[in-house]
Amino acid sequence: MGLLVVGSIALDTIETPFGRADRVAGGSAVYISAAASYFTAPIRLVGVVGSDFPKSEIEFLESRGIELEGLQVVEGGKTFHWSGRYHYDLNERDTLETQLNVFESFNPVLPESYRKSRYVLLGNIDPILQRRVIESMERKPDLIICDTMNFWIQGKHADLLETLKKVDILIVNDSEARQLASEPNLVRAAKKIMRLGPRIVIIKKGEHGALLFTNGTVFSAPAFPLESIYDPTGAGDAFAGGFIGHLARTEDFSDDNLKRAVIYGSVLASFCVGKFGIEGLKDLSEIEILGRYRDFIELSRFEY
Amino acid sequence: MGLLVVGSIALDTIETPFGRADRVAGGSAVYISAAASYFTAPIRLVGVVGSDFPKSEIEFLESRGIELEGLQVVEGGKTFHWSGRYHYDLNERDTLETQLNVFESFNPVLPESYRKSRYVLLGNIDPILQRRVIESMERKPDLIICDTMNFWIQGKHADLLETLKKVDILIVNDSEARQLASEPNLVRAAKKIMRLGPRIVIIKKGEHGALLFTNGTVFSAPAFPLESIYDPTGAGDAFAGGFIGHLARTEDFSDDNLKRAVIYGSVLASFCVGKFGIEGLKDLSEIEILGRYRDFIELSRFEY
Repeated sequence: MGLLVVGSIALDTIETPFGRADRVAGGSAVYISAAASYFTAPIRLVGVVGSDFPKSEIEFLESRGIELEGLQVVEGGKTFHWSGRYHYDLNERDTLETQLNVFESFNPVLPESYRKSRYVLLGNIDPILQRRVIESMERKPDLIICDTMNFWIQGKHADLLETLKKVDILIVNDSEARQLASEPNLVRAAKKIMRLGPRIVIIKKGEHGALLFTNGTVFSAPAFPLESIYDPTGAGDAFAGGFIGHLARTEDFSDDNLKRAVIYGSVLASFCVGKFGIEGLKDLSEIEILGRYRDFIELSRFEY
Repeated sequence: MGLLVVGSIALDTIETPFGRADRVAGGSAVYISAAASYFTAPIRLVGVVGSDFPKSEIEFLESRGIELEGLQVVEGGKTFHWSGRYHYDLNERDTLETQLNVFESFNPVLPESYRKSRYVLLGNIDPILQRRVIESMERKPDLIICDTMNFWIQGKHADLLETLKKVDILIVNDSEARQLASEPNLVRAAKKIMRLGPRIVIIKKGEHGALLFTNGTVFSAPAFPLESIYDPTGAGDAFAGGFIGHLARTEDFSDDNLKRAVIYGSVLASFCVGKFGIEGLKDLSEIEILGRYRDFIELSRFEY
């Protein structure tokens, strides 16, 4: 058992039309782990922070049953800092500042106890580092899921292709899928990506939901139509965390269960955007999660 | 019985990365009527063309059982002409030319036999004309559905609001909904629009599907993930035609049946974009339509 999560850990300063959060915990590894923690244990986090990373946030991760043996704390160093401002319609944002700090020289080292993890989620980091993580595993994981972004698709294309050969599931957003496949049509783009290695491709479309492509099926999941979205930060990572969390919990990779996992991912993303930063992932009950899952059924079901 | 369709009739010149069609029949009234004709009869069309409108296209409309008593043919006049070019990703298009011609002074006059129609679909025309049609009806229709666009939302706002008071269902795309409600969040926008008159709002999101808002429910319909989209022109009108066609056929306005109607609208839109102009709506079989409906079930269904 065990889910290995590798990614960024950040202190984010977020402005939206609805408020502001200053230097709050963020980064892909944090959002993924927090979301997945509602489904599976143990979760094994690998990431790097500086000594400015708040003890309270570390305690929160511990309280969620997340193992931190792989968390590197650079004494005297400063945590990766991102600052952004969302526009009124929340689909647009400006990055105001990016300070890589200790993340610039991040080298994911896996503690011995992590190397047998059956599930691996590689957050959006340099594809060379993602590959290094895969190669550090002692046994072939049951499932390797990988995220990436335009920056790597463009800047480290060859390395990304090497990494993709070893990946079971790629999770990207629609513009990333189009860029990676050089193909505007999402169905064709997904098929092209499936020839690069991943046998399953998930395309996230933000407020428009997500598409799941497997060898045998295409599945379209809606996004939850929320009246109040406070902060879209981390929604994609919360999706990935809920998705792999459900798969790790059920150990069932059938098409039907992959669809359920996509919905659980969408459920966690919907909770994530309802509050600032990771607040929306801090205190969920099983009843809330199941209730929202049922809401998704209501939202998308129609009769013959 | 009877479905009254009022809208533009055009000769379109369409360029996409996949081909070109020169001066082919188009316009909202044509797409709506053609799509609806697979579900209901009689369909009563009101529109205007010049003497350059091809006889073959009129024969096509007649062959679909569409009544043309309300079709005004201006001798010596020229039909409304639109010319546009789609970009490679098909979500963007440039209008190259718009010649209103006989459409500029279009005044929808309803023949006596049209005035008892139980279903009215007002395509995207001047809201003053839309209202005039409603006021020409001899009896209150069972269902009045209306489309509009940014041009009228901005340019004839007060008139549009007057028209909306008399409308049961508004069908708009996402940017139009946001503009009409001055609200970026689509759920809030739909609720605001429902306070303007329509008790049901449908928001079309192109390749991302459509949202149905009624008093009791929100329903998210996927778009069909087509590998080959040749020409997006008319997809929204084909959607509206399939939607009202199914409602007129079943005479059932329950939430469950509205959902089915949204899917039938999506089915017709998916056929529409698979060929150029109205070609995709010319020769569909009931089996094809039902088969695509079943595909939509497969596409969106997941189990608890």
